[in-house]
Amino acid sequence: MKDQILKVVKIGGKLIEDDEKFQVFLRDFSSLEGPKILIHGGGNYATEMAYKLGYKTKMIDGRRITDSNSLKVIIMTYGGLINKSIVAKLQAMDCNSIGLCGADGKSIISTKREVNEIDYGFVGDIAEINSIFISALLDQNITPVFSPISCTREGELLNTNGDSVAAELAIALSSIYKSELYFCFEKKGVLQNAVDDDSVIENLDLKKYKALLDEKVISDGMLPKLYNCFQAMERGVSKICLGDSTLLQKNSKHTKILK
Amino acid sequence: MKDQILKVVKIGGKLIEDDEKFQVFLRDFSSLEGPKILIHGGGNYATEMAYKLGYKTKMIDGRRITDSNSLKVIIMTYGGLINKSIVAKLQAMDCNSIGLCGADGKSIISTKREVNEIDYGFVGDIAEINSIFISALLDQNITPVFSPISCTREGELLNTNGDSVAAELAIALSSIYKSELYFCFEKKGVLQNAVDDDSVIENLDLKKYKALLDEKVISDGMLPKLYNCFQAMERGVSKICLGDSTLLQKNSKHTKILK
Repeated sequence: MKDQILKVVKIGGKLIEDDEKFQVFLRDFSSLEGPKILIHGGGNYATEMAYKLGYKTKMIDGRRITDSNSLKVIIMTYGGLINKSIVAKLQAMDCNSIGLCGADGKSIISTKREVNEIDYGFVGDIAEINSIFISALLDQNITPVFSPISCTREGELLNTNGDSVAAELAIALSSIYKSELYFCFEKKGVLQNAVDDDSVIENLDLKKYKALLDEKVISDGMLPKLYNCFQAMERGVSKICLGDSTLLQKNSKHTKILK
Repeated sequence: MKDQILKVVKIGGKLIEDDEKFQVFLRDFSSLEGPKILIHGGGNYATEMAYKLGYKTKMIDGRRITDSNSLKVIIMTYGGLINKSIVAKLQAMDCNSIGLCGADGKSIISTKREVNEIDYGFVGDIAEINSIFISALLDQNITPVFSPISCTREGELLNTNGDSVAAELAIALSSIYKSELYFCFEKKGVLQNAVDDDSVIENLDLKKYKALLDEKVISDGMLPKLYNCFQAMERGVSKICLGDSTLLQKNSKHTKILK
């Protein structure tokens, strides 16, 4: 166990689309001291690209299905354009980084999601993180930048939830570092009132979380995000915060997850 | 200086398009013992993608210009889809690899080509190779797989000739390893007669090369390729071979460059 804090930061796809905010975020990120990892989403870029290429987005029960064309577009945009552009920007800010997907160095191994009621297509659920490989990069002061793509042991690339990638990285690396997890998304944190952006719940513990679930205050995208948070808190991550693109700045309003 | 042979292998874009041959090539490559590096081109994939997206390929005097849309497509296809797919395939063959462009770990630093008679657009000429970073990966038995994309010190991604990337990697790493360079392309080697695929020149030294240049036997894509070969031979690479997708197999017909 190293006497170092590792910061694992997830930046949501929608924030990447706002050039100005994203540039400020990357400055904040590159200024973080000590070992750090960035995980990015892709926002609407893949949807736009699929549309331009004439690929139809397949939906079942309102959920997006990753068919082979979608997977190609995701590898091109998330794994290629967005990932490499972020690395280039970080290099320009003197943050030595490396752009990875789960296949690289067998860093994020997944299994293809089983077909039950719905066949989600080329979607992976994380099975193993290669902490040794990742910490060897961190030891060289290199910052890994992950696209949300994993790989099966058989060498199949799979679309993977970015929040889960961030949570599993923070959990796995908590055996080596004191790991912290930061989710940056469109809101300032978990909101008491979905239509009031300033109703941020500053401290959220398991009891309050369960109460909010019962009251249906938490819905849509926040459901898996908070599930990931409490899983991570349970499994060794020492600090978890949720906020907007300014989350890494001092005094930013945000939600802190408590045990 | 390590007592190890490093094999730097470039696979041309057109060979990647032939699934069956490419699979055999990757098996041969993954079976190579000792440290190795793969550099891939992209073939017509980028052109096809640009066409589908409605981007026009800009040409001046018969030479392709990399405008901002072309660069995006190159980063998506070469840096994303092709690169990550190769890594996944190698992982499936138990060859632990990592997909990189020049921005990753500041591995291939370039300068943007100056505008003289022609403005080639977003094209980079290699200025520096980060041998320390690359050899640290090789020391961990990780095989770097490079797309032909470099990065300026200011963090600008640039399209870069794949043959040059291969040659410069082999040259730079010859200070650490005994480095060898293998160019796999459509032909069995340098041909005495362009229309006779079996007229392979088995040994090519500088004198014969100059004679072939005078006789205009060498033309088009072979000109920069052989220029790269003799540069590399001059600058420390110990062995250079050119051949088709079977080049890495024993007894394959090919051209060997001699001092």
